[in-house]
Amino acid sequence: MNFKTIEWRGDHIRILDQRRLPLQVRYLVCENASSVARAIKSMAIRGAPAIGVAAAMGIAIGAKKIRIDHPERFKQEMEKIFQQMAQTRPTAVNLFWAIERMKRVFEESSRDIKRAKVRLEEEALKIYKEDLEINRTIGEVGKRLIQDGSGILTHCNAGALATAGYGTALSLIYAAWEEGKKFHVYVDETRPMLQGARLTAWELSQAHIPLTVITDNMAGWLMKEGKIDLILVGADRIARNGDTANKIGTYSLAVLARYHRIPFYVIAPTSTIDWKLPRGETIPIEKRGGEEVTHIGSKRVAPEGVEVYNPAFDITPNQLIQAIVTEKGILYRPFQESLKRIQTS
Amino acid sequence: MNFKTIEWRGDHIRILDQRRLPLQVRYLVCENASSVARAIKSMAIRGAPAIGVAAAMGIAIGAKKIRIDHPERFKQEMEKIFQQMAQTRPTAVNLFWAIERMKRVFEESSRDIKRAKVRLEEEALKIYKEDLEINRTIGEVGKRLIQDGSGILTHCNAGALATAGYGTALSLIYAAWEEGKKFHVYVDETRPMLQGARLTAWELSQAHIPLTVITDNMAGWLMKEGKIDLILVGADRIARNGDTANKIGTYSLAVLARYHRIPFYVIAPTSTIDWKLPRGETIPIEKRGGEEVTHIGSKRVAPEGVEVYNPAFDITPNQLIQAIVTEKGILYRPFQESLKRIQTS
Repeated sequence: MNFKTIEWRGDHIRILDQRRLPLQVRYLVCENASSVARAIKSMAIRGAPAIGVAAAMGIAIGAKKIRIDHPERFKQEMEKIFQQMAQTRPTAVNLFWAIERMKRVFEESSRDIKRAKVRLEEEALKIYKEDLEINRTIGEVGKRLIQDGSGILTHCNAGALATAGYGTALSLIYAAWEEGKKFHVYVDETRPMLQGARLTAWELSQAHIPLTVITDNMAGWLMKEGKIDLILVGADRIARNGDTANKIGTYSLAVLARYHRIPFYVIAPTSTIDWKLPRGETIPIEKRGGEEVTHIGSKRVAPEGVEVYNPAFDITPNQLIQAIVTEKGILYRPFQESLKRIQTS
Repeated sequence: MNFKTIEWRGDHIRILDQRRLPLQVRYLVCENASSVARAIKSMAIRGAPAIGVAAAMGIAIGAKKIRIDHPERFKQEMEKIFQQMAQTRPTAVNLFWAIERMKRVFEESSRDIKRAKVRLEEEALKIYKEDLEINRTIGEVGKRLIQDGSGILTHCNAGALATAGYGTALSLIYAAWEEGKKFHVYVDETRPMLQGARLTAWELSQAHIPLTVITDNMAGWLMKEGKIDLILVGADRIARNGDTANKIGTYSLAVLARYHRIPFYVIAPTSTIDWKLPRGETIPIEKRGGEEVTHIGSKRVAPEGVEVYNPAFDITPNQLIQAIVTEKGILYRPFQESLKRIQTS
């Protein structure tokens, strides 16, 4: 990758501002927890694993910048930071998973402020490095799902930009490409935020992988025309039974895939699995502002005053998923059992 | 309706420029056949029935403006006009149907130039008035499909703007609304040209009918959530067996509707039926420029140089269609037979 989605720079965090891609490659310099929280909330950085990494780094930089040497008051400040991070976005479980890891480290070291700061920084960097390694592993594990000549459909951006690097769904594509396989990627533009047209098209172009951008409503027709052999998507939260929350539109693709007998794969690190959740129905679905739909960029397209519905995610029931690809292997149905096996492995 | 999609004004045709809606209500003044052809090709006016009306008026105004009094040379000029109109857009059969009607009238009267001009004008106005009446009738015929409390999903714009007035799919909505029924319309924004967000939302708002705009990829999730009771779409061409070409995305909706057991209705005047065509597979699908996808308005959203696939229509096989609503009644499967009955009625 010739770009870094997020980078720890000692006294600040550098975040590639994805709202400006592909037209501009600009970086945000985040010097405190609030600016990282803002970057997550505004989707300057997005993608479940990347949100986890950003939250961890945001907590670490937040801790580092607190100029208080009273442990109790320091702890109070840290709690504010944990809370602030937890309120950025509700759906991606990696966010809460990362916050939990940071909290645990903090609790173990909170009596020694200096040590706590060091330990939080170490843990954030560990989460970052783990994510990179996990994504590499996912790619290696899953690349055999891609055949020479495959037509691959992907939705939103589950790539390097959605993670510390390399990606989840796209990691399979990068790994298969590095192996010399030839294939074609169809990229759903992914309204309303156009992560497919803007981000996936950009990062695959950087790697010179052949791709075609389509509007979301073309996907079914492409399946009918026989252009699609498999579908690869990421995940924002996976329940214990395999039900998967992912970018709005994923559910429609899964239904269309079932009708056309095309395998539909979810690719995610195990940090995306919410072990507390038996089923998908209770996953909180973030509703975002209507202007994401009525406007494109700053330009209004719909008439003033119209009502908009804008759920950012939907939930795909496990029956529609062929397999879930994680760093611990390719898991098949019943996911209840296959997921349980990797939880304890 | 407090607007006119297209209007014959004696020495020119006034066309509501739909590319500018909903932000601006501007009219094109077309004084000759070429400017009408350009308006059709550039989608200033669109929608199968409206294209038919515009082509007929374009031919009539073209004839009126020819300053030649030699019948043979007049005929040559007319042939150029017929050809020019036929080359505007390939999928909507109403275009060719209207051209054929105008040709027949011309052939009957071509030896008397003055009379030919009058007859062509009369025929164009007749096509216009017939379309208005037919749409009213379709609304009356089909309104019983809408129940009090229904959630209705529609795609693209099959409304007053797609016809001489009143609309096809939306005519049912207008007729049911006038009857006092209460319901809610979900409007697919319909990428890439956003006819749903721009046009359908605009004309339903004008009529104060409650609506919610969604992105195309939300439709399946809304069905899953139980918000949609029926789906109403228009058509650009219907084969003898009921296979239907309509705006890209229609096929996906029909598959999603089948999966969720939601009735999927096609609404069109009989002029949209291509009696020469046994099946849908051979309907020509217009491929439009990639910049409709890579850009929104004049703003680029996808990276430079990316490949785009942009079919403007798709074909829904008859098995996925619950019924076809025409001015001659609501037709059920097998369409082969029900369509044949109305052809000869």
